[in-house]
Amino acid sequence: MTVHRTAVPGSAISEPVLPPALSEATRATIDTPALVVDLDRMDAAIARMADAMSERGVALRPHAKTHKSIEVGRRQVGAGAVGLTVGTVGEAEVFADGGLDDLFIAYPMVPAGPKAERLREVARRARLRVGIDSVVGAHAVADALGDDRGRVSVLVEIDCGGRRTGVAPSDAGPVAAAATHLGLDVIGVFTHGGHGYQGPDARAAAAEDEVRGLTDAAGSLRAAGVEPSVVSAGSTPTAFDSARGAVTEERPGTYVFGDRQQVALGSIAPDAPAAVIAARVVSVNTAARRFVIDAGAKTLTKDVPAYLAGHASIPELGAVVDRVSDYHGVVEVKDGGSLPEIGQVIVAVPNHICPVVDLFATFLVARDGAIVDTWRVDARGRSG
Amino acid sequence: MTVHRTAVPGSAISEPVLPPALSEATRATIDTPALVVDLDRMDAAIARMADAMSERGVALRPHAKTHKSIEVGRRQVGAGAVGLTVGTVGEAEVFADGGLDDLFIAYPMVPAGPKAERLREVARRARLRVGIDSVVGAHAVADALGDDRGRVSVLVEIDCGGRRTGVAPSDAGPVAAAATHLGLDVIGVFTHGGHGYQGPDARAAAAEDEVRGLTDAAGSLRAAGVEPSVVSAGSTPTAFDSARGAVTEERPGTYVFGDRQQVALGSIAPDAPAAVIAARVVSVNTAARRFVIDAGAKTLTKDVPAYLAGHASIPELGAVVDRVSDYHGVVEVKDGGSLPEIGQVIVAVPNHICPVVDLFATFLVARDGAIVDTWRVDARGRSG
Repeated sequence: MTVHRTAVPGSAISEPVLPPALSEATRATIDTPALVVDLDRMDAAIARMADAMSERGVALRPHAKTHKSIEVGRRQVGAGAVGLTVGTVGEAEVFADGGLDDLFIAYPMVPAGPKAERLREVARRARLRVGIDSVVGAHAVADALGDDRGRVSVLVEIDCGGRRTGVAPSDAGPVAAAATHLGLDVIGVFTHGGHGYQGPDARAAAAEDEVRGLTDAAGSLRAAGVEPSVVSAGSTPTAFDSARGAVTEERPGTYVFGDRQQVALGSIAPDAPAAVIAARVVSVNTAARRFVIDAGAKTLTKDVPAYLAGHASIPELGAVVDRVSDYHGVVEVKDGGSLPEIGQVIVAVPNHICPVVDLFATFLVARDGAIVDTWRVDARGRSG
Repeated sequence: MTVHRTAVPGSAISEPVLPPALSEATRATIDTPALVVDLDRMDAAIARMADAMSERGVALRPHAKTHKSIEVGRRQVGAGAVGLTVGTVGEAEVFADGGLDDLFIAYPMVPAGPKAERLREVARRARLRVGIDSVVGAHAVADALGDDRGRVSVLVEIDCGGRRTGVAPSDAGPVAAAATHLGLDVIGVFTHGGHGYQGPDARAAAAEDEVRGLTDAAGSLRAAGVEPSVVSAGSTPTAFDSARGAVTEERPGTYVFGDRQQVALGSIAPDAPAAVIAARVVSVNTAARRFVIDAGAKTLTKDVPAYLAGHASIPELGAVVDRVSDYHGVVEVKDGGSLPEIGQVIVAVPNHICPVVDLFATFLVARDGAIVDTWRVDARGRSG
């Protein structure tokens, strides 16, 4: 099994190392651009996180928005996850249909109109938890569920520093009390230390913020007369560091596949990324030392964190994708880099795998560099 | 019909003005996030471009990668378009199935393996043109089509300054001659002045580059003994300015819906954008003057050109979406801006509509602010 270890020249931070090389014969069978998952790397990532949380005595409820796949979700639960986290009612519907019916919609719910109907319907066929971050949201959830409100558990979201959703930790108790008063079953608090994505040095502090914020929020609930049985943190960069103290549950998502960003952040090893894009070189400009692959913004997205250059790395060529338009990925070959051949199939590691997966109908599943299966991206496009 | 004319404070360039306001009653029926197309604005954009090209005596072959919709393609052809442009074999298959079977795959084709089979199949049921930008590509097309190669026309792509795909104009003739020698029917040259997207001041020069490059390339074909009957330019920012001289055809795509970027570039009027996102306010932080909508990176994308701030504008609130994660759009309310209510449905104009459409299964079709129809995004995800 050949492992490419070419680093990207000039990069000051860690860059991904590819999975077992797809053979030329295998590459010739792929209809590019394609999303390829290395099964052994994925299973290793699932086991590593499950084992780490088990050692810490913390429940693992992986965020399924990364993979959107019933097969992958089954493997996570099979390895010990207590259930799945999702971001939308649409994802909850898909996973409930797939028999993965212990689900937490970790999002500040304000269901209304058609969404309220859908929430009530999925609550009837899944063991469901939902998030709220306001009294208005609590009212909307209670109204949506009507007589079924006792079937759903509620967690109050707090902001621990990510400046997104969630109330201040000290406001969690009053929101919980109001929700309880509406007949909702409030079981705890949750947060997402999204500021751990700000750079390699931000992870530890964000994890600390998760633990501190959740501890304060749990205290706020107790002071309001609500006992928090679930205290839930979540993100791949912070998961290992915040699984302690008051925290009872972690909700990492991206760890299952990893990506170039997670390698740069140091939250996974360079040889951990399990999901790659196979793309074909469609144009080579020898004079300009430029080539173009058939994976552009509608495949790689335009997700570029501040600490990375380019839209994906191509480890086997020591290159990055410098620019993208819808169906074109443009690579300006740097000093020392070599030009590929027109028609050659290359493998790229996306910056952020979650929105990339959402653009595909299927995964090609590879083991030892050969395609062994095809899985559906079951919850593709389920953004609401 | 109410038209909001709130400008985004602090913006130095033109910002979109919304279509006829969706009524509160209509908003309550929408399952957010939703892609909403204003029918009258879209039809006006289709007519405006068709009329402009007709006046100039230039054929219009709109790029369908923007809308990916058979219904929208039919309206374009009904208004006078000679056929459609697509970017992938997958898009060609969908439109051919929909009866829109005069198609140009304006992409440097290097078909191999499964893609070669698919190209040959679609060539049997559509009047097809394909692009090449290399002799290797010509060989691949000829091999893929085999005995059917006479059914497909070929255009040679040139780079007129966009630094993406295409040969130098003076190299078009040799590539055309080699393709002709392989039995391919070379009918002309094409280019995309993508550098017209670099900013409001770049459009005119990019259009000039398209005309000059194509004129030179047409001369190169003639010198090689190939008469170019089709000389094709294309992009929304350059379409009006490059439809002259040697140019016989234009391939704009984004004009059909428009977006925040096209308004900023000045290629469409502020009141022209026809496709918007309806999203719900799910969280409001009064102290921080921040709110969050349920449209994030998996709805709005992370496409942010250098001359725009934020991921979308929200004209009715005088705001922009400052940050996105998968399902969250975060707005930091600036001085003078007001906070919406939790649960309120707002309307946002994306920066770049093409990759946004690709994330949805359907369009909600609005007229005078009411939803009157639903259309499929037929070619969603057809990126290869």
